[in-house]
Amino acid sequence: MTEPVRPREVAAIDIGSNSFHMVVARIVGQSLQIISRHKQRVHLASGLDEHQNLDQAAIQRGLNCLAMFAERLQGFEPENVRIAATYTLRQANNAHVFLKRAEALIPYPIEIIPGTEEARLIYLGVTHTQPDSGQKLIVDIGGGSTELVIGDGFTPQLAYSKHMGCVSYNKHYFSKGKISSKNMATAQLAAQQKLESIASKYTSKGWQTAIGSSGTIKAIREVLIGQGHSDGVITAKRLQQLYDAILKVKNSDDLDFVGLSDDRKPVFAAGVAILNAVFSSLNIDEMIFSDGALREGLLYEMEERFRHSDIRVRTATSMAKQYNVDIAQANRVKTTAELLYNQVEPQPGLTKVELATLLSWGALLHEVGLSISYPGFHRHSAYLLRFSTMPGFNLEQQTVLATLVRFQRKSLKLEEMPELSIYKRKHLYPLIRTLRLAVALNGQRSDDPLPVIMVDADKEKWQLTLPEGWEENNRLLAADLRQEQEYWRKAGWELDLSPN
Amino acid sequence: MTEPVRPREVAAIDIGSNSFHMVVARIVGQSLQIISRHKQRVHLASGLDEHQNLDQAAIQRGLNCLAMFAERLQGFEPENVRIAATYTLRQANNAHVFLKRAEALIPYPIEIIPGTEEARLIYLGVTHTQPDSGQKLIVDIGGGSTELVIGDGFTPQLAYSKHMGCVSYNKHYFSKGKISSKNMATAQLAAQQKLESIASKYTSKGWQTAIGSSGTIKAIREVLIGQGHSDGVITAKRLQQLYDAILKVKNSDDLDFVGLSDDRKPVFAAGVAILNAVFSSLNIDEMIFSDGALREGLLYEMEERFRHSDIRVRTATSMAKQYNVDIAQANRVKTTAELLYNQVEPQPGLTKVELATLLSWGALLHEVGLSISYPGFHRHSAYLLRFSTMPGFNLEQQTVLATLVRFQRKSLKLEEMPELSIYKRKHLYPLIRTLRLAVALNGQRSDDPLPVIMVDADKEKWQLTLPEGWEENNRLLAADLRQEQEYWRKAGWELDLSPN
Repeated sequence: MTEPVRPREVAAIDIGSNSFHMVVARIVGQSLQIISRHKQRVHLASGLDEHQNLDQAAIQRGLNCLAMFAERLQGFEPENVRIAATYTLRQANNAHVFLKRAEALIPYPIEIIPGTEEARLIYLGVTHTQPDSGQKLIVDIGGGSTELVIGDGFTPQLAYSKHMGCVSYNKHYFSKGKISSKNMATAQLAAQQKLESIASKYTSKGWQTAIGSSGTIKAIREVLIGQGHSDGVITAKRLQQLYDAILKVKNSDDLDFVGLSDDRKPVFAAGVAILNAVFSSLNIDEMIFSDGALREGLLYEMEERFRHSDIRVRTATSMAKQYNVDIAQANRVKTTAELLYNQVEPQPGLTKVELATLLSWGALLHEVGLSISYPGFHRHSAYLLRFSTMPGFNLEQQTVLATLVRFQRKSLKLEEMPELSIYKRKHLYPLIRTLRLAVALNGQRSDDPLPVIMVDADKEKWQLTLPEGWEENNRLLAADLRQEQEYWRKAGWELDLSPN
Repeated sequence: MTEPVRPREVAAIDIGSNSFHMVVARIVGQSLQIISRHKQRVHLASGLDEHQNLDQAAIQRGLNCLAMFAERLQGFEPENVRIAATYTLRQANNAHVFLKRAEALIPYPIEIIPGTEEARLIYLGVTHTQPDSGQKLIVDIGGGSTELVIGDGFTPQLAYSKHMGCVSYNKHYFSKGKISSKNMATAQLAAQQKLESIASKYTSKGWQTAIGSSGTIKAIREVLIGQGHSDGVITAKRLQQLYDAILKVKNSDDLDFVGLSDDRKPVFAAGVAILNAVFSSLNIDEMIFSDGALREGLLYEMEERFRHSDIRVRTATSMAKQYNVDIAQANRVKTTAELLYNQVEPQPGLTKVELATLLSWGALLHEVGLSISYPGFHRHSAYLLRFSTMPGFNLEQQTVLATLVRFQRKSLKLEEMPELSIYKRKHLYPLIRTLRLAVALNGQRSDDPLPVIMVDADKEKWQLTLPEGWEENNRLLAADLRQEQEYWRKAGWELDLSPN
């Protein structure tokens, strides 16, 4: 008698600049069934000071919310939870303080995702929620950033994230809630300036349906419904009327629209100014609303990674192509790295599969910097991996890849290693050691197969066992390995080279 | 009665790691007639300490030599003199001290050129000197670096510069002139390691003639001639015999070959070890010698820039293509920048043509960084221009381009500007201001022609005159210009926007 298969439950948390959201779903057959939603207004972005530091009060509000969400997630396996943080933690200089303190409260890694990645995930969340309607423009005005994506089917074609959101604009243009025609016009013009450089790209690509997502646009829609526009469509004309209606009050406290909640009031005017700018810059006639958002994007992607191929593979492959990577060499290094890493005991805290996957991508992309120039190409590779738009990777994973390739060769200036929050040095060091050995062993870029090489890895001391008599026939490579040994020694690591 | 046209004289100085060379030539019709050559052994590289600082004695030796060369160049116009420095000044942390003191002695700019640029110029020097012989491999072992180039006709196809030279290797592997089979073998193996990563590229491309250039290989050839090999061809066998013959003495002072000068003795063994490594890594059978070298490359390029198109145009164009630059937008910005800069009085010290040319390239390439990612793309553009292999540009010009595009938009953190030696801030500021205005004015990426805009530039205060009534119809652009005005103000500059 077999036990009935219990559906897997997955959860996604969106650490937004205005609200934190959690959504929990059950994977039933081929589809996701959402079983609970949680939302708390934390207005994290309002705690960012002029030096881009997050104040203690805001940190505490955020941590309280995460602690509450954590209760709901008791017993969830790490691979079934994904937490993404957006604008405010991207901006905050002291984001690491938040992450560090969060570790103690919620036992799942928090990923800070780049703006374009946020845009892609929002697109994914909306397209999975919305019946397909051809080419779509999706606009998401958050607390700190606004994402604009055009795509068809499940593929985004144009995705930007702009530094403007209802919390940050409220703080900047509506001091103490003061509403005036000047404030509104200044905020709207500032938003149009942000959109200026991309507007013509969007209008020339075009779309059939414009869709809004998330709280700001939802609130606008609800006010319009409250005014009798029961279809809930946001038209340019209705939006302009709402803009004019807002100007009738002097302070956001006095906004008194049916459908507008008290906690949305402070950021409502800023949201309308931004949306009006988006309508004007992109010549939008009307926009419908979709319930899908970043959190749904996270969920659907978690589910898809099990069923389908990982979008990160596509990203890495296309990058290798863009920078004319010598694929034969990349694959040699990748194969050697995988063979070596299989023999290494992983450090606890992260799954070996995840670490090995990053190693493979690092191997595939370790030479992208050669397209810039040969001298110091490991640093160029690191720059490209650190800063390129890489769909499917979060900022920390990009930093890990950049770090791996940065340390693929030459001296090990470990003091230059960035501090990360999910990946610790104990995870990275074995990856770096493996990649370096794989690069050194394939230094001659030859198709001749390497002999079987055994690794015995014990934290700071690794032993590489080469077949007997092999060194005599490979003098150059042996010299490279001795040089490598010297690099390790200077970094306080030990590489023992013993013939079998 | 017309005066007889006096042939133009041009001069090139090569600030090498072992010797400084000067060559003066006359341009007669379509060809260069060399009229004098000067050489002084300065062994600059031996003054580099372990922290890559050039010691005072070496700096003084270099300056004395330049002062002597300067006497010969009295009355030469700046456009007829080119001075290039290679490995040692590329490496030295205190190169700026040398350059600063040299300014007082020799009134022509000293360019520090990248290794690949050195390789390209050597190739040019050799191919102009050598009768054409199909696909060529050219090897130049200098005091601090070795260049290896494969090409056909006047076009190099593969060019690398490696950090190994007879002065640096002598210092590192033959302490106090001690010669032993171990020292020789270690030096040769180290050189083979340097060549390991590129060897298969060279051997798979192949060549018909291997040619050596410059002092190290010349000295080896002369010793071989002294030994009776009167054809002067360096064969693998003869080179190995020479290698073995060197091992018969214990110290370089005791080297006693016919044809070997006293001042070459200290670095001869290192040179033979490196050349033997090159022969072995690239499977070279025999090599002939050519008198052409870096200095001839400099001369021929000076002459060609007048006659033919500038190689830098090709470099900039191919880079724009590689990084998928929106050429229409690049050309809009370039055109606006040129129109504006024409109205600006140049600062003395450099020709307006040279400055305007850099501005045009900066405009053409200002968006290369977009291929990495949109956020902070001006910094990505700067990184690519700073570090890419860019034939025809010296390091300082690349830094100027990087600086221009770095400051094309956003706040003017002028404290981040690098200190340069040829280009002063007084030259760069007008270029930066012009590029910024051109970028801002074309922010909408529109093909509609801009109105006529007048600039009145007076050092720190620029006045931009826009046509009357124009602002009312271009609210967004007007807001951009006011924002730009604010950026200038914060940097201590003044931008006056007055309608006509």
